[in-house]
Amino acid sequence: MGKRVAAFGEVMMRLQAPGYDLLSQASTLGYSFSGTGVNVISALARFGHDGYLVTRLPDNPLGDAAAANLRKLGIAQRLVVRGGSSIGMYFLENGFGARPSRVTYTNRLESSFNTAPEDAYDFDGIAEQLDAVHFCGITLAMNDMTRSHMLRFAEAMKARGGLVAFDCNYRPSLWGEDGYGRAKPYYEQMLKLADIVMLNEKDALHILGMPARRTTREEQLEELVPEVASRYGISAAAGTHRSVNGDNTHGLRGYLYKDGSFRYSDTLTFAVYDRIGAGDAYASGILHGELSGFEPERTVRYAAAAAMLAHTTAGDTPMASEREIVRAMTQTSGDVER
Amino acid sequence: MGKRVAAFGEVMMRLQAPGYDLLSQASTLGYSFSGTGVNVISALARFGHDGYLVTRLPDNPLGDAAAANLRKLGIAQRLVVRGGSSIGMYFLENGFGARPSRVTYTNRLESSFNTAPEDAYDFDGIAEQLDAVHFCGITLAMNDMTRSHMLRFAEAMKARGGLVAFDCNYRPSLWGEDGYGRAKPYYEQMLKLADIVMLNEKDALHILGMPARRTTREEQLEELVPEVASRYGISAAAGTHRSVNGDNTHGLRGYLYKDGSFRYSDTLTFAVYDRIGAGDAYASGILHGELSGFEPERTVRYAAAAAMLAHTTAGDTPMASEREIVRAMTQTSGDVER
Amino acid sequence: MGKRVAAFGEVMMRLQAPGYDLLSQASTLGYSFSGTGVNVISALARFGHDGYLVTRLPDNPLGDAAAANLRKLGIAQRLVVRGGSSIGMYFLENGFGARPSRVTYTNRLESSFNTAPEDAYDFDGIAEQLDAVHFCGITLAMNDMTRSHMLRFAEAMKARGGLVAFDCNYRPSLWGEDGYGRAKPYYEQMLKLADIVMLNEKDALHILGMPARRTTREEQLEELVPEVASRYGISAAAGTHRSVNGDNTHGLRGYLYKDGSFRYSDTLTFAVYDRIGAGDAYASGILHGELSGFEPERTVRYAAAAAMLAHTTAGDTPMASEREIVRAMTQTSGDVER
Amino acid sequence: MGKRVAAFGEVMMRLQAPGYDLLSQASTLGYSFSGTGVNVISALARFGHDGYLVTRLPDNPLGDAAAANLRKLGIAQRLVVRGGSSIGMYFLENGFGARPSRVTYTNRLESSFNTAPEDAYDFDGIAEQLDAVHFCGITLAMNDMTRSHMLRFAEAMKARGGLVAFDCNYRPSLWGEDGYGRAKPYYEQMLKLADIVMLNEKDALHILGMPARRTTREEQLEELVPEVASRYGISAAAGTHRSVNGDNTHGLRGYLYKDGSFRYSDTLTFAVYDRIGAGDAYASGILHGELSGFEPERTVRYAAAAAMLAHTTAGDTPMASEREIVRAMTQTSGDVER
Amino acid sequence: MGKRVAAFGEVMMRLQAPGYDLLSQASTLGYSFSGTGVNVISALARFGHDGYLVTRLPDNPLGDAAAANLRKLGIAQRLVVRGGSSIGMYFLENGFGARPSRVTYTNRLESSFNTAPEDAYDFDGIAEQLDAVHFCGITLAMNDMTRSHMLRFAEAMKARGGLVAFDCNYRPSLWGEDGYGRAKPYYEQMLKLADIVMLNEKDALHILGMPARRTTREEQLEELVPEVASRYGISAAAGTHRSVNGDNTHGLRGYLYKDGSFRYSDTLTFAVYDRIGAGDAYASGILHGELSGFEPERTVRYAAAAAMLAHTTAGDTPMASEREIVRAMTQTSGDVER
Amino acid sequence: MGKRVAAFGEVMMRLQAPGYDLLSQASTLGYSFSGTGVNVISALARFGHDGYLVTRLPDNPLGDAAAANLRKLGIAQRLVVRGGSSIGMYFLENGFGARPSRVTYTNRLESSFNTAPEDAYDFDGIAEQLDAVHFCGITLAMNDMTRSHMLRFAEAMKARGGLVAFDCNYRPSLWGEDGYGRAKPYYEQMLKLADIVMLNEKDALHILGMPARRTTREEQLEELVPEVASRYGISAAAGTHRSVNGDNTHGLRGYLYKDGSFRYSDTLTFAVYDRIGAGDAYASGILHGELSGFEPERTVRYAAAAAMLAHTTAGDTPMASEREIVRAMTQTSGDVER
Repeated sequence: MGKRVAAFGEVMMRLQAPGYDLLSQASTLGYSFSGTGVNVISALARFGHDGYLVTRLPDNPLGDAAAANLRKLGIAQRLVVRGGSSIGMYFLENGFGARPSRVTYTNRLESSFNTAPEDAYDFDGIAEQLDAVHFCGITLAMNDMTRSHMLRFAEAMKARGGLVAFDCNYRPSLWGEDGYGRAKPYYEQMLKLADIVMLNEKDALHILGMPARRTTREEQLEELVPEVASRYGISAAAGTHRSVNGDNTHGLRGYLYKDGSFRYSDTLTFAVYDRIGAGDAYASGILHGELSGFEPERTVRYAAAAAMLAHTTAGDTPMASEREIVRAMTQTSGDVER
Repeated sequence: MGKRVAAFGEVMMRLQAPGYDLLSQASTLGYSFSGTGVNVISALARFGHDGYLVTRLPDNPLGDAAAANLRKLGIAQRLVVRGGSSIGMYFLENGFGARPSRVTYTNRLESSFNTAPEDAYDFDGIAEQLDAVHFCGITLAMNDMTRSHMLRFAEAMKARGGLVAFDCNYRPSLWGEDGYGRAKPYYEQMLKLADIVMLNEKDALHILGMPARRTTREEQLEELVPEVASRYGISAAAGTHRSVNGDNTHGLRGYLYKDGSFRYSDTLTFAVYDRIGAGDAYASGILHGELSGFEPERTVRYAAAAAMLAHTTAGDTPMASEREIVRAMTQTSGDVER
Repeated sequence: MGKRVAAFGEVMMRLQAPGYDLLSQASTLGYSFSGTGVNVISALARFGHDGYLVTRLPDNPLGDAAAANLRKLGIAQRLVVRGGSSIGMYFLENGFGARPSRVTYTNRLESSFNTAPEDAYDFDGIAEQLDAVHFCGITLAMNDMTRSHMLRFAEAMKARGGLVAFDCNYRPSLWGEDGYGRAKPYYEQMLKLADIVMLNEKDALHILGMPARRTTREEQLEELVPEVASRYGISAAAGTHRSVNGDNTHGLRGYLYKDGSFRYSDTLTFAVYDRIGAGDAYASGILHGELSGFEPERTVRYAAAAAMLAHTTAGDTPMASEREIVRAMTQTSGDVER
Repeated sequence: MGKRVAAFGEVMMRLQAPGYDLLSQASTLGYSFSGTGVNVISALARFGHDGYLVTRLPDNPLGDAAAANLRKLGIAQRLVVRGGSSIGMYFLENGFGARPSRVTYTNRLESSFNTAPEDAYDFDGIAEQLDAVHFCGITLAMNDMTRSHMLRFAEAMKARGGLVAFDCNYRPSLWGEDGYGRAKPYYEQMLKLADIVMLNEKDALHILGMPARRTTREEQLEELVPEVASRYGISAAAGTHRSVNGDNTHGLRGYLYKDGSFRYSDTLTFAVYDRIGAGDAYASGILHGELSGFEPERTVRYAAAAAMLAHTTAGDTPMASEREIVRAMTQTSGDVER
Repeated sequence: MGKRVAAFGEVMMRLQAPGYDLLSQASTLGYSFSGTGVNVISALARFGHDGYLVTRLPDNPLGDAAAANLRKLGIAQRLVVRGGSSIGMYFLENGFGARPSRVTYTNRLESSFNTAPEDAYDFDGIAEQLDAVHFCGITLAMNDMTRSHMLRFAEAMKARGGLVAFDCNYRPSLWGEDGYGRAKPYYEQMLKLADIVMLNEKDALHILGMPARRTTREEQLEELVPEVASRYGISAAAGTHRSVNGDNTHGLRGYLYKDGSFRYSDTLTFAVYDRIGAGDAYASGILHGELSGFEPERTVRYAAAAAMLAHTTAGDTPMASEREIVRAMTQTSGDVER
Repeated sequence: MGKRVAAFGEVMMRLQAPGYDLLSQASTLGYSFSGTGVNVISALARFGHDGYLVTRLPDNPLGDAAAANLRKLGIAQRLVVRGGSSIGMYFLENGFGARPSRVTYTNRLESSFNTAPEDAYDFDGIAEQLDAVHFCGITLAMNDMTRSHMLRFAEAMKARGGLVAFDCNYRPSLWGEDGYGRAKPYYEQMLKLADIVMLNEKDALHILGMPARRTTREEQLEELVPEVASRYGISAAAGTHRSVNGDNTHGLRGYLYKDGSFRYSDTLTFAVYDRIGAGDAYASGILHGELSGFEPERTVRYAAAAAMLAHTTAGDTPMASEREIVRAMTQTSGDVER
């Protein structure tokens, strides 16, 4: 019943100062291993699919630690390649109230993934073993080789009739000056190959340079997403609108555009414990709904509840089971469960 | 001036994942020892009474650790029996916002307390040394032997004119299918022996199967509690209504029914740090008020403030002194005390 | 461009129970070194000034640890004297919601600072090396020797044309019975020597015994501060009004009185993580603005934003850089920075 | 090249007091999941085999945590059954010098594994998927059902020509009075089914009641093991002699009896960090050598080095890779590797 | 069967840097509460006696924490007085190998115990409730008031026929210059009142100024102790000789002089984990033997084993039970107990 | 009296798994900042010199944390340049007994130091402010730019008559294949500029390719070091011979060659807690002796004792004061200091 799903992408080592300490105050760091692909696939594995990661990890104790922790998250290692000696890292200092969280990336371009040689992966052989694959726009920002890997993998999947999902996930700091202009052709290549796309109106406006007649983000979403879907032949598009409230709560509303119509979740409002990776939980919910044949209304509500719960656990990676998500779709917050 | 008060009940080992971690994320657990009786008696000892626990602890390092920690809480060990090799445990994963806390019990029926032999305790000799004893409905749910111990103890106290307090504390998961029907006769036996009872309208409706003409919980409380008191000869009944708000705050309003009239505390609203055991803090406040001859109005306000403060400290066991409770009855939250 | 600024005052060892534990629950303490002078000077050093502390630390491992941690905060050690064997300490138990934080001082009067001999410091030589110095009213409460040190230091600065800042910081518990009466003459001596004074209407009413015709604290501030300034020849006065809200947020509004007119910051409302030392952050902002020639409007807004941010980091000592404060002056709370 | 190997056995939750604390001193516990089968299979997976566990885990958050941690150790979950609500536990207090380590078991007989129903496992289907399986004498000590499971599984393997390994692992405290007499028939059944057996002269003397003419343990080993092998048709027998020295070091010498002759490792002497599970590391080395066609001399040296290294890492489960074991077979202890 | 035994002395707060960190490296401290009296009485309570402490604790959260932890150690609080606001403290940095441990005292003379008023204790009423009391020479070093308390307490015990034990425990750093001369008269007063005295030849040579004809410490012990016993009318004297070896092990040999003859334990050699308080464990063993009527040979072996085990657990306070000590008297170090 | 001394070199972030955990077992890391230059200069600052570091740190929170921790170690920041975004890191897994410690470097070539532009430092201006500077062979292994920086700095010092110290510190893994051949010319350039050189016979044999007639390392040292000194015009050469014992102890003997003769310390044998950085402690002792005009015999004994003590504290950086080193030169290991 479960599908065979992979993600292609970099594994990041997250090094987090304890509590609300700054790096210049603390003397210990918690560490875990994540990344868009890790987060999406771990959630799908928890939902009952066979989850794989296609990536390259260093062949040293850091790579061993990453591999062990990915296994713990339920991600099969069969398609993981080992080589190189470096892993992407980011340091996280948790914000509090008026002080925003701070993320410091380091060692990213030198990572085993971003320096994988051209023939590091046998994409044809890999594609044979999969029903669906998830890609992320962050990989497009790295270098020509990772872009080439990504496109070849997407084409191999497409050639075998597999499902291609693509999360636009544009990060301005990674693209630098004139980033939108440089990114557009690569994004367009991926959009043409993708069946399911995570995006919202900002991606259409900025990356694709599409003009909008309307002004609110809700209106622009309904104006632009159908154009994107039709222009690039995308069967389903999904995304969220987030609002950051003053009292440590966020508001989140998900959408799913499919078969010419929009479905929305309720706007969920909730306290935030760990915000990072919540977008990936939303993507995992959309993919699970689509792979499992949920009604679109159920898919969007499931994905929004998955995203909400991902804000309530530590780490980038969603930890909620399908049973917990379904309960969160229907219940209000309650007393202790015992 | 302080009274000699005991509780009869099981000591539980609480094993708690750090922060908001799940058991599958963490690698350490904090542990402490609690239980309804521990919580109530520890608070009463802090209020100036001689507090005893009548229970059975394993005769091994786990039992030694429990005994040491009960002593730390101010509970005298003279009436504690040692034997068997197992202690009831529960694992706690703290919830956050939309994700509820999760309690996993283990090893309960095999505990030294729940497997104590018939003659484990000399209830007549014990009752001689006490002014009051507190019982809890959870013990009724365990097995025939614990029920028999409890009734014999209550009868021994009654025979010597001691005060018998009983907290209904019905836990559906412990009674299983048709639980209310199976529980009713045991509860009725205890209610007939009890002087002070902790209950609310739900206990009357479900355990005792009493019908209600009114609809809101406030109305049903005023309708049913006097009936219960009169039917079983209870001199004082007390309890709380709790509401769980969306923003990590709870509302709590306590009542005390005595001499034919109801007294209520204000509805206190407060942020919640550790919710478990707060009901026991309320019970300890009611008992302290009754044992110390407070006016009923003062007793119910004292108990509600004690319950509120119990939500603000770690662990099941209330930690507030009488001075702190009295200040919380009169003050609003303030700046640092220095 | 940066100025040479010192503070005169005691270094305190802060020993804090973890999380929200009480001292009778925990078994470890976090420790750091702070004090009004430490906090103000550390912030000024972070803003680009040369920051010194004039104090006396014990000549033992506790003093070594204090010195190392002051260096870490950016405070130059050249003017620190070593001698004696004791350091002032306070134990902090964090409050939660309805339970206030609790500070227990110990070992204060016996500290190396408070037992420094008359000739411990060469104030003339020190004053030569400085542009400005900051004093705190807490030092006035200690003993005759610390008061004598403080006045001699202020006079030495004044004699050389240096800037003297004085924070009234009256702590009732330190002055004991009839404290205001005993404190007044010392405060008046300092006010006469000071150029910049941190105070509000309460100090004028209680310490200086000035009568007020108006009733609200805002009105009394505007009524009394100009009188104080004119009576003692103070060129700038500044301070805050704080309100403690029920939901773990505080409101804060800063004022700066200078050249005959009042400037106010907006009333900032924010969640509080660590309240201690936030007043010192405000003082550091005022001093930085004055030393750097900011417009008064900018100074008061800068100081209020600095105070707000100081509530969001652990420890007494402000950790925000000038860049972060300027951003907090203009932005609302946002999403992760990456 | 790697084989498909499973172990049948209980997963234990190890709860360890930090450092050298007693349970009555500490307030936190580290936890991990182990067991003879876990240890042996995790090591074999690390050596390149496909490692499975055949066991039953509770269907609750404890079971989820166990499953995640077994995955982290490289153990495939496909053959794990979920059901029941309890997991075997042991509490470990590390000894120091003259004070021995202390292990307190709890909750063992009620565990999901030990209460698995008769049809919990499809042994025929399982045996089809395996090349070898490892059993442990501890499982024989539990109850009739676990003994029945074990024998049926061994017979199913035997019927399909799979390799059966059996570790005698007699624990006196689990068998109680007249334990040897009660254990003998079950052990004999397993010995008849086993190809590789972990035992030493004590097992032959006590469990099998065989007389010895010689007196030293080395002589008795050479006298009795060949008799056992011939009587029960065992193709390879292996085990160790351990000596505990006064200075926190142990001595260990391994043997392998095969094809009528004994091979021995050197007597290795080494400092001990975590002694528990080291016997399983030895067993994993023997199995790896046999499954990989090592020369017997190499097998016994490999197993002894694996056992030695298992004393140098935390937890019951061996963590050394084949490369590290091979290096330890040839090198003396050295300086930092960088 | 157990006796009613008290100690008179100060409770110290021990603040310990984690692992082998220095105060200038760490940022947390572990804390516990100890003192000679705490250590001796806690051990005696563990051996089955009713153990009391006669001391004065501050009336604030530090005192509450001390009281809770003393209760945890099994020490009854009935004779503890509350008052003052300060507790003696010492900071401990663990040494390693060539680097010795470092203890920094602070806040000692200002403690609640050392500033107790003349009438703080009702020594006559206290002595009525006791069979024996333990005093320590450290208290003699504090001030006239503590000396006066101590002598009055000893006299009150003596007057009622209670047993008086006195541990010489001379600390040079507390007595300062010409310490021996100043200490001698106070020590002589206590020696005249004492029945059992902990001392060795150094105390006789230095404090009492007695000349020795022999040269080795073993010879001097046998020469001087009988003279001390006879001069001051002491019925039993006991103590240890310690040797510090280069390899983190110590050697320890205990003696007991009674009825005119010396008994010695073996010289025990053992690895050291926490050396502080081991002398108090020896004293507790001697007192337990004397109070329980052991043969002198057994008493001295029991005390030496108790001292040895006290080096193997964390903290100043001995944690071994009578059963564990008896086993250590007869066994060599062994493998895991399970 | 103290000199103005700088080191030129990279600051490394050390990320250490707790206790004896592997990276694949732990979930937290302790971090600190070190490097050969940091270690040497921190020690010299502790000995009373003005210590500077000439390096480049990233201009982000990692760089801020490094700067704060260097200040804590007593290193002045005036000559530190900020720029770039990356810091060299290494991960440390502590070995135990038969298992060696493991160091995994990452992110080294991309660090702010190793990517500093040609004009990053004003070496002429810097040299003006210094009496001595310390260089390390590791910097030679990085790239042409760091080599160029190093030579220009050494020449600028030489031109102004400053003292140049050079530690050969050859790391094979950094130079790769044919490393000795590639390294030799750079080493020769530095040796010609250096006054004091840290080296031993291995450096002469391998890097400089000098032949030896003798066989033991002691003989080769005496044969080759004078040749090196005379060939390159070095006034003092120093180094150590280390032996790693089986029981977690090391042996260390230092030498100093000066004015044509060798002086040796005793061979010190000691338990090892943290081995990394001990060579830098030796170098700091030699430099301190030379800068302070010690007799050569005293210098070599001082340096060896400093190195020994550096093995007894956590972290790469020596923590011993001059007083502690002098005591260790004369005393054997002792009991607690209090």
